[in-house]
Amino acid sequence: MTVAATDEGPLGIICGGGAIPLAVAAAVSRRGRRVVLFAVRGFVDAQAVAAYPHCWIAVGQFGRFGRLARAEGCRDLVLVGGLVRPAIRQVRLDWATLVAMPRIIRAFRGGDDHLLTGIGRILEGDGFRLLGAHEVAPDIVAPAGALGRHRPDADAARDIARGFEMLAALSPFDVGQAAVIGRGHILAVEAAEGTDAMLQRIVTLREAGRIGVPRGVGVLVKAPKQRQDRRFDLPSIGPDTVLHAARAGLAGVAIVAGGTIVAEPQRLIEAADANGLFVLGRADGEAA
Amino acid sequence: MTVAATDEGPLGIICGGGAIPLAVAAAVSRRGRRVVLFAVRGFVDAQAVAAYPHCWIAVGQFGRFGRLARAEGCRDLVLVGGLVRPAIRQVRLDWATLVAMPRIIRAFRGGDDHLLTGIGRILEGDGFRLLGAHEVAPDIVAPAGALGRHRPDADAARDIARGFEMLAALSPFDVGQAAVIGRGHILAVEAAEGTDAMLQRIVTLREAGRIGVPRGVGVLVKAPKQRQDRRFDLPSIGPDTVLHAARAGLAGVAIVAGGTIVAEPQRLIEAADANGLFVLGRADGEAA
Repeated sequence: MTVAATDEGPLGIICGGGAIPLAVAAAVSRRGRRVVLFAVRGFVDAQAVAAYPHCWIAVGQFGRFGRLARAEGCRDLVLVGGLVRPAIRQVRLDWATLVAMPRIIRAFRGGDDHLLTGIGRILEGDGFRLLGAHEVAPDIVAPAGALGRHRPDADAARDIARGFEMLAALSPFDVGQAAVIGRGHILAVEAAEGTDAMLQRIVTLREAGRIGVPRGVGVLVKAPKQRQDRRFDLPSIGPDTVLHAARAGLAGVAIVAGGTIVAEPQRLIEAADANGLFVLGRADGEAA
Repeated sequence: MTVAATDEGPLGIICGGGAIPLAVAAAVSRRGRRVVLFAVRGFVDAQAVAAYPHCWIAVGQFGRFGRLARAEGCRDLVLVGGLVRPAIRQVRLDWATLVAMPRIIRAFRGGDDHLLTGIGRILEGDGFRLLGAHEVAPDIVAPAGALGRHRPDADAARDIARGFEMLAALSPFDVGQAAVIGRGHILAVEAAEGTDAMLQRIVTLREAGRIGVPRGVGVLVKAPKQRQDRRFDLPSIGPDTVLHAARAGLAGVAIVAGGTIVAEPQRLIEAADANGLFVLGRADGEAA
């Protein structure tokens, strides 16, 4: 579903960390819709949001957030960017949050999916409409096919298939959906550490002689969780992902077309081409 | 199956790295059977094998190994200890290995399981009998129930069940079978880095405020791969595993009874008791 720039008022973007919230803001603005950023304190850089109308909120301030969003006329919201489990000192509870607390605690006890779905439900109960970044800015998700000029060879294609197959098996466990595969071996599986730390691990293991495949072999695969509500926390890649993959000695990166946000695609393609890596958007539903 | 100390001659122990090969040697010796260690160069500490009759071999020396083992009268072999994929400079090929090369390469293209199974088949083709450490030293594998005086609480029991369930889902992908789970969240999944490095990751993530569960919550689960030939590379834990888990702030460690080697059980129990961690041997086949 694509939500066009209609008379639906400005779009509220609840911004976690990283470059993606700003990329979404830019893409939505380009489509002619006004955006208001709700920057989560501790996760967002002040300079980054300065280019757009914005308010600061803290984790736990449902009440404050609701008042600000209504004052700005934002009924539609998207929630983008990393909100790694906040340290308790970053949490500021307000009255509305305390009221919602039992629901929030229930949500917190599941995986990140449960947490986000729980937050989504609370916001919707307050009359907001929560949309996915891919709905408000469809040009921000990966297209099918190769980005850039390199293509996976037969070995890499097998690794990609095996990687997506493994991520599908892990999916019910609500765990960070990325892995590194080389010649059929699963070299790393991402959980709480995030993709960049996982790629750094490959660098370290390779330096220690613990990676049995040569440089230029192996792929990073990233996929949304299968039952993931795609309005939340789609996986994303950017130029840095490609550079980290290059440093890890990989042949390329495979993502799910339509299910992965690509930040700064132009710079990403340049990084991939310059380092000899492929970046492949696999058509969703393609055989594993 | 338990192989008693009969007239079957000395047992050859092909020793990879770590404390387990020596623990197996000690346990077999205690049962009255002579052992001869075949220490793999680059993985084994010279001092560690000095207490037993031993020979040095290199990865790739099937021919040399066969001659030495026959000269020592070893028909029965066990293969224990870490042989993380060797760097190519550690490999010394001899004639018998070159002859076996096509089979070895086929074995190398799968996961570690395939590699070990392939090596096992080659040795058996040469007239050796490959046994599991649990067969020659049954007292070296974990019993069912708690080791030490701490027990998992209800939260930990749920995390253990979820952990084993996830490892079972990963098992077909031949990936290092350990993970850390806290309040239902998969915090880390082990692949090429090994258990200790995975636990160190939890320490780092916790210091960075990236672990959402408090200290004293969360479990390390370790399981043999489901289709793993248990003669090879059973998962193992030792006192260090418990100390690393303690440093990672976990509540305890869960392993599969009968399917996990426990190195230095006395010191392991002392470490667990002193740090307030449980170590649970889950009866094999118990509901996940």
